[in-house]
Amino acid sequence: MIVIMRPQTTQEEINMLKQKIESENDVTVNVINGKECSILGLVGDTTKVDADKIRANEFVENVEKVQQPYKLSNRLFHPDDTVIKVKNASIGGDELAVIAGPCSVESEEQIVKIAQDVKKSGAKFLRGGAFKPRTSPYSFQGLRTRGLDLLKIARQETGLPIVTEIMSADMIDKFVEDVDVIQVGARNMQNFELLKQLGKTNKPILLKRGLSATIQELLMSAEYIMSEGNENVILCERGIRTFETYTRNTLDLSAIPAIKRLSHLPVIVDPSHAAGLWWMVEPLAKAAVAVGADGLMIEVHNDPANAKCDGQQSIKPKVFEQLMNDISKIPGKTIHKAYDTVNV
Amino acid sequence: MIVIMRPQTTQEEINMLKQKIESENDVTVNVINGKECSILGLVGDTTKVDADKIRANEFVENVEKVQQPYKLSNRLFHPDDTVIKVKNASIGGDELAVIAGPCSVESEEQIVKIAQDVKKSGAKFLRGGAFKPRTSPYSFQGLRTRGLDLLKIARQETGLPIVTEIMSADMIDKFVEDVDVIQVGARNMQNFELLKQLGKTNKPILLKRGLSATIQELLMSAEYIMSEGNENVILCERGIRTFETYTRNTLDLSAIPAIKRLSHLPVIVDPSHAAGLWWMVEPLAKAAVAVGADGLMIEVHNDPANAKCDGQQSIKPKVFEQLMNDISKIPGKTIHKAYDTVNV
Amino acid sequence: MIVIMRPQTTQEEINMLKQKIESENDVTVNVINGKECSILGLVGDTTKVDADKIRANEFVENVEKVQQPYKLSNRLFHPDDTVIKVKNASIGGDELAVIAGPCSVESEEQIVKIAQDVKKSGAKFLRGGAFKPRTSPYSFQGLRTRGLDLLKIARQETGLPIVTEIMSADMIDKFVEDVDVIQVGARNMQNFELLKQLGKTNKPILLKRGLSATIQELLMSAEYIMSEGNENVILCERGIRTFETYTRNTLDLSAIPAIKRLSHLPVIVDPSHAAGLWWMVEPLAKAAVAVGADGLMIEVHNDPANAKCDGQQSIKPKVFEQLMNDISKIPGKTIHKAYDTVNV
Amino acid sequence: MIVIMRPQTTQEEINMLKQKIESENDVTVNVINGKECSILGLVGDTTKVDADKIRANEFVENVEKVQQPYKLSNRLFHPDDTVIKVKNASIGGDELAVIAGPCSVESEEQIVKIAQDVKKSGAKFLRGGAFKPRTSPYSFQGLRTRGLDLLKIARQETGLPIVTEIMSADMIDKFVEDVDVIQVGARNMQNFELLKQLGKTNKPILLKRGLSATIQELLMSAEYIMSEGNENVILCERGIRTFETYTRNTLDLSAIPAIKRLSHLPVIVDPSHAAGLWWMVEPLAKAAVAVGADGLMIEVHNDPANAKCDGQQSIKPKVFEQLMNDISKIPGKTIHKAYDTVNV
Repeated sequence: MIVIMRPQTTQEEINMLKQKIESENDVTVNVINGKECSILGLVGDTTKVDADKIRANEFVENVEKVQQPYKLSNRLFHPDDTVIKVKNASIGGDELAVIAGPCSVESEEQIVKIAQDVKKSGAKFLRGGAFKPRTSPYSFQGLRTRGLDLLKIARQETGLPIVTEIMSADMIDKFVEDVDVIQVGARNMQNFELLKQLGKTNKPILLKRGLSATIQELLMSAEYIMSEGNENVILCERGIRTFETYTRNTLDLSAIPAIKRLSHLPVIVDPSHAAGLWWMVEPLAKAAVAVGADGLMIEVHNDPANAKCDGQQSIKPKVFEQLMNDISKIPGKTIHKAYDTVNV
Repeated sequence: MIVIMRPQTTQEEINMLKQKIESENDVTVNVINGKECSILGLVGDTTKVDADKIRANEFVENVEKVQQPYKLSNRLFHPDDTVIKVKNASIGGDELAVIAGPCSVESEEQIVKIAQDVKKSGAKFLRGGAFKPRTSPYSFQGLRTRGLDLLKIARQETGLPIVTEIMSADMIDKFVEDVDVIQVGARNMQNFELLKQLGKTNKPILLKRGLSATIQELLMSAEYIMSEGNENVILCERGIRTFETYTRNTLDLSAIPAIKRLSHLPVIVDPSHAAGLWWMVEPLAKAAVAVGADGLMIEVHNDPANAKCDGQQSIKPKVFEQLMNDISKIPGKTIHKAYDTVNV
Repeated sequence: MIVIMRPQTTQEEINMLKQKIESENDVTVNVINGKECSILGLVGDTTKVDADKIRANEFVENVEKVQQPYKLSNRLFHPDDTVIKVKNASIGGDELAVIAGPCSVESEEQIVKIAQDVKKSGAKFLRGGAFKPRTSPYSFQGLRTRGLDLLKIARQETGLPIVTEIMSADMIDKFVEDVDVIQVGARNMQNFELLKQLGKTNKPILLKRGLSATIQELLMSAEYIMSEGNENVILCERGIRTFETYTRNTLDLSAIPAIKRLSHLPVIVDPSHAAGLWWMVEPLAKAAVAVGADGLMIEVHNDPANAKCDGQQSIKPKVFEQLMNDISKIPGKTIHKAYDTVNV
Repeated sequence: MIVIMRPQTTQEEINMLKQKIESENDVTVNVINGKECSILGLVGDTTKVDADKIRANEFVENVEKVQQPYKLSNRLFHPDDTVIKVKNASIGGDELAVIAGPCSVESEEQIVKIAQDVKKSGAKFLRGGAFKPRTSPYSFQGLRTRGLDLLKIARQETGLPIVTEIMSADMIDKFVEDVDVIQVGARNMQNFELLKQLGKTNKPILLKRGLSATIQELLMSAEYIMSEGNENVILCERGIRTFETYTRNTLDLSAIPAIKRLSHLPVIVDPSHAAGLWWMVEPLAKAAVAVGADGLMIEVHNDPANAKCDGQQSIKPKVFEQLMNDISKIPGKTIHKAYDTVNV
């Protein structure tokens, strides 16, 4: 960590700050006196040093972090890729993990039929929302616990592990019992109380990046779960909010190689929510594979025009089948090995 | 609501969609056949029409909302300003409501002393975090229920109503009992389960705008609370996330006149969190008053350099006293009356 | 175009506006009287209707455009893909067009050597900056006309057509004589005087998307060039500015299928400038091919650590060779044909 | 400047980089060996050190700038406020400088009448566009040189100095002769060739912040003008591009105290372009004064509904008169003196 002092700060004040930082943290402070201003270099484990507290000092101009503030999710301390096993399937290994299914569970017939269809095309996991976070209180809020029951029927029929979103901590026990992968939605990425409680389970957690979360904040939210003991975290890029309005969000595919470099956790891409346009799912899914994602999360619906939720971004089973076929021709997943090499 | 059809859509397909929309909703559909494409105009109560469902139709290019999707928070149906009374104070009336106090409650001595100081300078409410949403699990997480107890002592000593943040629905009963205004933080603005539960209480809720929430989304979150029966919602602008990194967030003061036009709910400004820089609190607070805010939320700490949280954005009691003095000279609060007039 | 009137606007005022719009434009206005507000639907060629002028009316709440405001670049009026031929090469056809070379031309030896290297690996065009737009006046500003001379030597040695950036209209004659493709940089995307002057030439123009330009604004800037008579415009996605700071900009790969749907112009991707990190060029270039881009623009330098400009994002010739090899295995370019089909 | 090395970099490589940096720049490099990585602290005049070049080194993780990269516009080297005199008026002194007038000059009658009206209400400068940067080539492009002639007539009639936008370097001689303050629009903020040419004149330059320009980039563009010899630069905040669409741009009022701290140059606010909504001009103008701006730039039109450009954001002369009256009651301009004090 680097502390940049304001110009004209006296050596006395610098020394006082140096002593204060050293007394409160397990670090050594090196002082470099520059031409216009001095800087302090903190050496040691700075993960737990509170930068804002130092910034509150009147003579401090700014504080820059050198070390990443996350430990458990940091590739530096865990060089090998994490592979998360879920029943017969896995996320993070050599094989691309494809999660597919409708935005929301609507009926037994619907979810079972779609589950069978996506399984046939090669999906390894079934998604389906039971509890739905909707911007409007007047929109369909999901079948809730009845939705979980229907997902279980679909799992029984197909053997596909189920992935579904949790919206409040009071449902954790039920989700742990019923569900294979618990999803935390973008809007709850910094619902820290929920993250902490999920950290006390041992279920795989699919953590979606918040609409305006930086990559570092996403990793810090993973850290919340991991620091409570649950290291089974899968990250998911699903578009960030920008000024561009043609797509609902802007899919940030650069986040995949970035996360691969910074962390050992698996990371997948959700092209359906990113664009919010069904006809973009195909090219964006291909790009996600090419960029090195560990998996995809795709919305598939047998009747998008009558879907209770997000039909505009759902593809039909036949389009999904074609997509799975196309994707199989794209070399992916080995790409990030290149990052270890130098630019020769 | 306007539905824009794709070019070359046939009249038959247009008619089918028209009939479908009319059969599923309480609206009349008017068709306008344009040169390159046709548009459908939906007349009636379109608040509950699901735009995404229509967008899922293959022949639909786009759907534009004409009517605002919120009702209870909409000024159109409630022209007069809402004034929320909290003990002897109120928010939304003629007087500027100033909420002040430390980022987090640290000790009885600290919170009582600051409460006395800010009261002396004219603050009408005491703020102080007991449960703290921190980006890092390794940062100070607040004194939690012990913090609530200390806030109650400070209230007893000063008579100031207390404002503090809730982070999970399981604490609602305790907050209803202990606290005067329950704050929902920016990161929980779309924690819909929490909002619904808060809607079942009758406590005033201070709802902060999410880092990447549009003004409309903020009003939709207010609608979540109000649609459950609790109409005591106070909105708070606290900066949005942009590309500019000099300030922590970018304070969007345009949101104040915008919200005043769109909604009858009171809206206040938090300049401390917006900038994240103590020396900007003063000019931004003045601007907030001049732009027509109903109140301010200011972080005040007697020893910022040793604050456990956000010291870099806290001002000292003497600076706060000076600020309150300066603010009293700025004409505010009546400004938005101008919006009813036409541009003459 | 749709005009949304303010609530409670009288029929008389609506009729006056209808007549005014019809008298000033070649359109017919349809009035739909809604429950809370009325809307006007404008039918005819609305490309030239000034939405802002209508918005200036006191009784108008908002104006929504239905028709795209661009004509010459619009796929609606020009369904087939435009292919731009440059000497033996072309951009927009079946073959991926790869433009490669250093950020800036530094010496004859440097540019000739890199040109030979990238040609050997399969690049079809040589890039190299002679006039450099730098954020700081104290940074290297390019070899300017001397740089153009060196590019010509490299072209003579390799036969590769040259692509280089123009920064002011007074250099157009020289560029037309010396250069094969004239690049307009992101910072000049809305330098409308420059665009107009380039529209009077018949040189292919490579138009880079501005840092905060929407896709529509990019197409409007293409329209500036085309409306003066030059239809040889190639678009380039090179990252947009967002809140994420890990990468220099956020590469918006969704823009490729979006542009393919909206326009017939070819569109390429520059992964080097987008990320600003050499080790991200490889995965992002692969993703760009998979998403359906017509070409790539890649910075290659034989000695990045001593490059006069942007060395941190340049890959070495051997890495480029490997990249070209990898890219050849990715199916691309046919992807956008899917957009014509419906979601079956 | 701080150079953060990648983890596990050897001392040999660190020493080689240290020597290289010292040999190429007039700085001393201090090495701090941290637990996980080492950092280099560069001491000396780092303004001209090329951070990107260092970043290109394979063993470098990142480079952080400590010193601001601008010198001439930097308050550190020029503590007193710059006051720019234009005829009888000035910008940057004790008095608020108000520039008012129509978006575009339309006729002699129009510009003279508005000039008289705004002068009567207290404006000190007349604005009016002759060359108009429009997103669409099909929109009104301004009266061009005829517009300059009309502005001169209005100046003769009222004595108000005139402010108008330049769009290309070939017009500089004419602007120097005809105009009192030359405006560089947001879209040309990084048209570096234009900036350099303007730096060779001695006319006051009003430099508007680009839509996605950081405060630092704005100051670097000022530096381009100043480094050529023209120190008469006035900065203008006019809204930045964010995800919020209710307003056209988001006015960043935090930029005013930030610029006041970082630079000695005067800075004004344009609330008309920021919001793009006439009824927001009033509250935002008041906020701009309260936050400490040196002046305002306001669009005033006598017939907004028939304005050839931007009528939706123009206020009528009577509204402007009322605004000037209201503004006179807001204490401003002395605010930034507080920034020198510490938080006591």
